[in-house]
Amino acid sequence: MANISFKLTKRDGRARLGQLMTAHGPIDTPAFMPVGTAATVKAMTPEAVHNTGAQIILANTYHLMLRPTAERVNRFGGLHKFMNWPGPILTDSGGYQIMSLNKLRKIDEKGVTFRSHLDGSKHKLTPERAIEIQHLLDADISMVLDECTSFPATKTEAENSMRLSMRWALRSKKAFQDRLGYGLFGIVQGGVYGELREESAKALIKIGFDGYAIGGLAVGEGQDLLFSTLEVTEPHLPDSHPRYLMGVGKPEDLVRAVGLGVDMFDCVLPTRSGRTDQAFTRRGRLNMRNARHKDDLRPLDPECTCYTCKNYSRGYVHHLVISNEILAAVLLTGHNLHYYQELMGAMRKAISEEAFDAFTILFTAEQASGDIIMT
Amino acid sequence: MANISFKLTKRDGRARLGQLMTAHGPIDTPAFMPVGTAATVKAMTPEAVHNTGAQIILANTYHLMLRPTAERVNRFGGLHKFMNWPGPILTDSGGYQIMSLNKLRKIDEKGVTFRSHLDGSKHKLTPERAIEIQHLLDADISMVLDECTSFPATKTEAENSMRLSMRWALRSKKAFQDRLGYGLFGIVQGGVYGELREESAKALIKIGFDGYAIGGLAVGEGQDLLFSTLEVTEPHLPDSHPRYLMGVGKPEDLVRAVGLGVDMFDCVLPTRSGRTDQAFTRRGRLNMRNARHKDDLRPLDPECTCYTCKNYSRGYVHHLVISNEILAAVLLTGHNLHYYQELMGAMRKAISEEAFDAFTILFTAEQASGDIIMT
Repeated sequence: MANISFKLTKRDGRARLGQLMTAHGPIDTPAFMPVGTAATVKAMTPEAVHNTGAQIILANTYHLMLRPTAERVNRFGGLHKFMNWPGPILTDSGGYQIMSLNKLRKIDEKGVTFRSHLDGSKHKLTPERAIEIQHLLDADISMVLDECTSFPATKTEAENSMRLSMRWALRSKKAFQDRLGYGLFGIVQGGVYGELREESAKALIKIGFDGYAIGGLAVGEGQDLLFSTLEVTEPHLPDSHPRYLMGVGKPEDLVRAVGLGVDMFDCVLPTRSGRTDQAFTRRGRLNMRNARHKDDLRPLDPECTCYTCKNYSRGYVHHLVISNEILAAVLLTGHNLHYYQELMGAMRKAISEEAFDAFTILFTAEQASGDIIMT
Repeated sequence: MANISFKLTKRDGRARLGQLMTAHGPIDTPAFMPVGTAATVKAMTPEAVHNTGAQIILANTYHLMLRPTAERVNRFGGLHKFMNWPGPILTDSGGYQIMSLNKLRKIDEKGVTFRSHLDGSKHKLTPERAIEIQHLLDADISMVLDECTSFPATKTEAENSMRLSMRWALRSKKAFQDRLGYGLFGIVQGGVYGELREESAKALIKIGFDGYAIGGLAVGEGQDLLFSTLEVTEPHLPDSHPRYLMGVGKPEDLVRAVGLGVDMFDCVLPTRSGRTDQAFTRRGRLNMRNARHKDDLRPLDPECTCYTCKNYSRGYVHHLVISNEILAAVLLTGHNLHYYQELMGAMRKAISEEAFDAFTILFTAEQASGDIIMT
């Protein structure tokens, strides 16, 4: 069964170059998915998102089921039409958000009962309902409902949690309706325990999914445990299918994870940073609220070809930031997403030229070189 | 002397069709100028402003002199380059904003001393300095510094205030450097007193300006006094020059004022309304926070050709509004500015066809017909 097709075109060490084909178009991998939580990538029009080079965005089942509701989005013709994004969309299943609710949720074998962060209203989410919601949203890629194991967790806690997620994964698969161009990804859990990750990966492969996500990381365990867990998990994932590292990360994390064989990423970092005055550049991050930018005629990143860098100075962006102007968020978010997409493009190019190691060395050196202060 | 040229091409009753030529391009009149207070039209990229049909924007001397300062904008190559708006810019002189400071300001013959609303720092603005600032900003159209007479004011108060403004107007004119494509407008004051308005207009004409603004209205006097004052002022303004009604107004105000011979307008209403959930339509205003829009598949205005109306439903805009998404302000501001520009275009067309009276009747009837609630 192949609802969505994945073609692996090149390898360079563990790094992989590929293309995923969905109902709403192709996705070149490694790929970064901007986060469009509430059916909008914050501060961006869909055209502006597209112009950054993004091919796929992520939206959140948890947020959308509460507002405007999946049934309503469906009456508007699905998420693509509702939000005017004609490209592919991946929806997460809500597991991560519901975990964050802490005392507002209750989990049992059937599913999870929780109270809305918006109005306190009570909701029930089961693996079957999560699939139904994502179907109503018309997601190109749906995710199974999982219990995102929190950190820290004992091995027994992580094991029980992972096994519940695997039983839910099977129910999700059974509930998913096969359609050409639409796919379902399983999510590997198991905390920071290698043997649990292996058990989880094998359980998912036995069920059979269109892609395999690595969940339950970037939840507070730190870089060392994140990457050591990724390193022991990845060999158990099938070569033939895309691998998606959920919720990661900083530019250097993406480079490192691509080097370990990851194909897909999502993270709020470029968008959230854009709304909190931060600019990502080839030479590290800039805090645009800093007064040192006020007379700087240069763009955020002199080598960047984005709309912001082609048309605006650091001095102007600084002025917008300290004036609390909406355009500050617009310009910085656009730049950051463009930076992330250029980084992914540069990695794809490096893999295609079998030069990923050299790319990594150059990237690291450039990031470490720091911003040149204008004299 | 004609720094900027104004060509009157048609009249229909008192309504006028014309074109103003500035250093940064032409402006078809009657024209509406979106307000870009702090070197940005709030929530809009300059390209988005241009796409609404706007040919000229307004920026604020008061705000810009405090932050980022006129000298800094000048070092960035002027306001056009700083904010990436290649078209004409009119800057107000700061008189209106400084009047709003109330107890934070002190006026004498030389000028006005005030404290910044940002940090309480003390600043001095004279007619000469206001011109210098606008020169540093590279404004296509500069405004004389005036004392915007508050409402209510006794006749003696309005007279003294107006005469001070006229002495300042002369000093402004003397300070202004003639350059091709750059112009200076005088501002008629005199409160709601016809004979003072006449005296003010004559004083300004004697000095000689590139255009004549009507100031000190829309400051709380109400529609009746606003339009009766406009009606008695307008006949004293020279036919050969553009007339600019400052700070006005609602769509129906623009139509009425164009009918009384006004050529130029500015107002924060379409932009501010866009950030406070309001949409202007041919059938009146919509409050997009209202739950009645949540299932509405129609655009804000079915007859509108703007980006928002071509791509988004009322239901989606409502969802963005209640979710406090930045895109709500972006889409509503864009729509509102487009609506204002379409209205100006429709008025220009009506004047060119000598059908302005019929246009006014149709416009009024359509606005009164109200929004059709979806069944």
